[in-house]
Amino acid sequence: MSELDTLIQLLAKLPGLGPRSARRAALFLIKRRDQLMEPLAAAMGAAAAAIRPCSLCGNLDTTDPCTICRNPERDAASICVVEDLADLWAIERTGAFRGRYHVLGGTLSALDGIGPDELNIARLIPRLGPGSELILALNVTVEGQTTAHYIADRAASTGARISRLAQGVPIGGELDYLDEGTLTAALKARRAL
Amino acid sequence: MSELDTLIQLLAKLPGLGPRSARRAALFLIKRRDQLMEPLAAAMGAAAAAIRPCSLCGNLDTTDPCTICRNPERDAASICVVEDLADLWAIERTGAFRGRYHVLGGTLSALDGIGPDELNIARLIPRLGPGSELILALNVTVEGQTTAHYIADRAASTGARISRLAQGVPIGGELDYLDEGTLTAALKARRAL
Repeated sequence: MSELDTLIQLLAKLPGLGPRSARRAALFLIKRRDQLMEPLAAAMGAAAAAIRPCSLCGNLDTTDPCTICRNPERDAASICVVEDLADLWAIERTGAFRGRYHVLGGTLSALDGIGPDELNIARLIPRLGPGSELILALNVTVEGQTTAHYIADRAASTGARISRLAQGVPIGGELDYLDEGTLTAALKARRAL
Repeated sequence: MSELDTLIQLLAKLPGLGPRSARRAALFLIKRRDQLMEPLAAAMGAAAAAIRPCSLCGNLDTTDPCTICRNPERDAASICVVEDLADLWAIERTGAFRGRYHVLGGTLSALDGIGPDELNIARLIPRLGPGSELILALNVTVEGQTTAHYIADRAASTGARISRLAQGVPIGGELDYLDEGTLTAALKARRAL
C-alpha cells in the first residue's frame, strides 16, 4: 500500500471524515505540502509526544501538572468533576468556571464492569476539605447520576460543599419540544422572580 | 500557543472540518494516541516527504515516474488530459480507463493570467503520435472547453485521434431537473437504438 493510501485510510478514521472526504482532505494536503501537510504532521507528532495525563486532575495536557492546575488564578478550593476531557473542554469554552477540574475518565457501569477503582476517584478525595466546593458536572444519564451519587457519598466525610449542575429548560428551548423528564425537573426547581 | 491549540488550528483548515469538528477530531486523536495519532502523524510526514510530481504526466505520486506511468499494462498510446489530480482520481475510481494521464495543473484563464506556459502543456505534445489517442477530459465550463480547444489545435499536427468526454443526461438524471444546456447537448448527440 502506498503512502497515499495509508494516509487516506487513517484520515478516514477521524470523526466527521468518511472515505470520500478523507480522499478530499488528502488531496487538499498534498497540494499544500509546505503550508499545511508538513506543519500538521509535525503538530500531530509533537502533540502525541508531549501529551500526558495530569497527575493531579487527570486532564490531558502537554505539561504535568496541567495548565489549569498550574494556574494560580484558578481557585484550588473549587473542584468540578467531569466524566471526560470533552466535558472539561466544553465547560472551559463557557469561560464561566474559574476553579479546577477532576476528570474521572468514565462513569460507573456495572454492565461494563467499571467500578470505582477503574475511575480516577481515589485521588479526588484528598483534594477536598471543609473549605472546598465539589461541583458534580456529570451527564444527566443513569450512569452519570449513579456516579454523582457515589462520589457525593464518598466525599461527604471531607466536609466539602457538594453541588451539581442545574437541570431545566435549555436556553432557546421550546417547552413544546422538551421531554417530560426535563420539564418535570424544571418545574420542581422553579425559581422565584 | 500549546501543541494542542496548534493541532486544532491546523486540523480546522482541512476541508470538511470546521473549528468545532477540528476540536472533536483532536480529542479523538488524543484518546487514541498509539492506534491513530502517531500512525497518522507518521503517514502524513512520510507522504509529505515522498510525494513528487511525475515528470512524464504531472500526476503526484511517491515515485517518479508515477505508478500509472510505470505500469506496463496501461496503454501508453491512450492519453487522458485532466485539469488536476482530483479529476484523475475520479476517473481512476471508475476503473473504466486503462490508458495514461496528463495533468495540466489548471485551465487557461485570461482573467487569472494563466496562459499555456503556466500549464503542463508543452510536455504533452511529444507524448503524442499518429498512433495515439488524446482524450480531453476537461470540465464542461468555459475555461475547461477553451483549454480543450487550445490543446486540440496544438495536438492536431501530431496526427493523434482527439476526443472529448460525451455530454448528456447524467445516469439517474431526471430531464425535468436538467438545465437547458445539458438537455440541448443530449438531444444533439442522440444515439440510434
